[in-house]
Amino acid sequence: MPKVEVCFTPQAFPLFSNEDAIVVVIDVLRATSAICTAFFNGVSKIIPVATVEEAREYQKNGFMAAAERNGEVVEGFELGNSPFGYMNSKVKGKTIALTTTNGTQAIEASKYARKVLIGSFLNQDVIVEYLESQQRDVILLCAGWKNKFNLEDTLFAGFVVDRLLDSSFEVQCDSAIAAKTLYQGAKADIFSFLEQSSHRKRLEKLELERDIRYCLTPNQTPIIPVLEGKYLVKLSMHLQA
Amino acid sequence: MPKVEVCFTPQAFPLFSNEDAIVVVIDVLRATSAICTAFFNGVSKIIPVATVEEAREYQKNGFMAAAERNGEVVEGFELGNSPFGYMNSKVKGKTIALTTTNGTQAIEASKYARKVLIGSFLNQDVIVEYLESQQRDVILLCAGWKNKFNLEDTLFAGFVVDRLLDSSFEVQCDSAIAAKTLYQGAKADIFSFLEQSSHRKRLEKLELERDIRYCLTPNQTPIIPVLEGKYLVKLSMHLQA
Repeated sequence: MPKVEVCFTPQAFPLFSNEDAIVVVIDVLRATSAICTAFFNGVSKIIPVATVEEAREYQKNGFMAAAERNGEVVEGFELGNSPFGYMNSKVKGKTIALTTTNGTQAIEASKYARKVLIGSFLNQDVIVEYLESQQRDVILLCAGWKNKFNLEDTLFAGFVVDRLLDSSFEVQCDSAIAAKTLYQGAKADIFSFLEQSSHRKRLEKLELERDIRYCLTPNQTPIIPVLEGKYLVKLSMHLQA
Repeated sequence: MPKVEVCFTPQAFPLFSNEDAIVVVIDVLRATSAICTAFFNGVSKIIPVATVEEAREYQKNGFMAAAERNGEVVEGFELGNSPFGYMNSKVKGKTIALTTTNGTQAIEASKYARKVLIGSFLNQDVIVEYLESQQRDVILLCAGWKNKFNLEDTLFAGFVVDRLLDSSFEVQCDSAIAAKTLYQGAKADIFSFLEQSSHRKRLEKLELERDIRYCLTPNQTPIIPVLEGKYLVKLSMHLQA
């Protein structure tokens, strides 16, 4: 029976030693939501990079580049991690270098995994369906906030756990039980539940309520971004048997 | 307003940089429960050590010594981390060297904090009363299981958060909100809630249901163990202004 585990922070990821598992990177507010949105709007490839300097290097070499730190677009970049920035015809067909406070660090931490997918509420059903189709162990890797636990990523992880337990997966780790329990308590109104959360408050100060509401909206795209080498690309379902 | 934070694992503790905070180390099943029980039964001092070798060294030098790994007493030691082992007149007045899988590692991780207390359901009310009396920031450090999140320590942390929010403390971190939410959902029957947990299952195999039930029993002792140099001793309330 395949098992599903939840890793609350990139720092803890090396403890989840399971080379055979599919990893789903989760940064609901907002990196993985932005990535899902970018592909839905025709972006060709995304190059996740750990530092602003690397993003700037790509920019100098003619790439479109996006950089966010502490919730804001870094000076000198036209894009950050707001999904709305990618709802724009100018991104179509482009390869974009992207660095964010937490999300791209989580991708970096998991890059040697068998397969790394990008998950968010925006592609929640296709993520679950794909994982069910694969029948392999799953690690849900929450990006958190600077390596601390956060609620919004945990709730999405809890949603996935909840759904996978309905099929043939099993849970062994307490973090998956906690995530599922928190999701079940919050699912009637995730937006309200998150009003108490630290990151919600951080984004509220930046007047990002519209972003938050969008990032919590299920199933806005049928695309699963997947890491291939140094690129995130669209997962082609028929090639992934 | 003093704040209360929850750190889910010793690994994450360095991220909670707050030199002024009081740290409460929590390893409900069973190290901190055993430590509370030991002092209640007249133990004079406990020397928490990280490795079995160190415990053996103390043993060779005439100390009483206790060692647990993976839920079992290590060969060559008369005590592990079962509270019942300490309900014995032979421990009275003794100094005991102790090493456990998780609890003593958490104490080690926090040893440079302003003050390190030992918490468990067995001394839950005095812990809360003491923290309220101090009006300082609090970090609740869960020992977890081999640096992974666990449910039982989180529930106790959630109990403390819940109580401190009733007085003048505030919460800023999502882990404290999660712990409190999980505790509130589980408090009617913590024993049953933990039936699904990983460590519960681990101990069940070792036929430790009696230990688990005892470790979840509130207020069996009015003693707060505190770290002083390399020793855990009884906190003298009147000296701690």
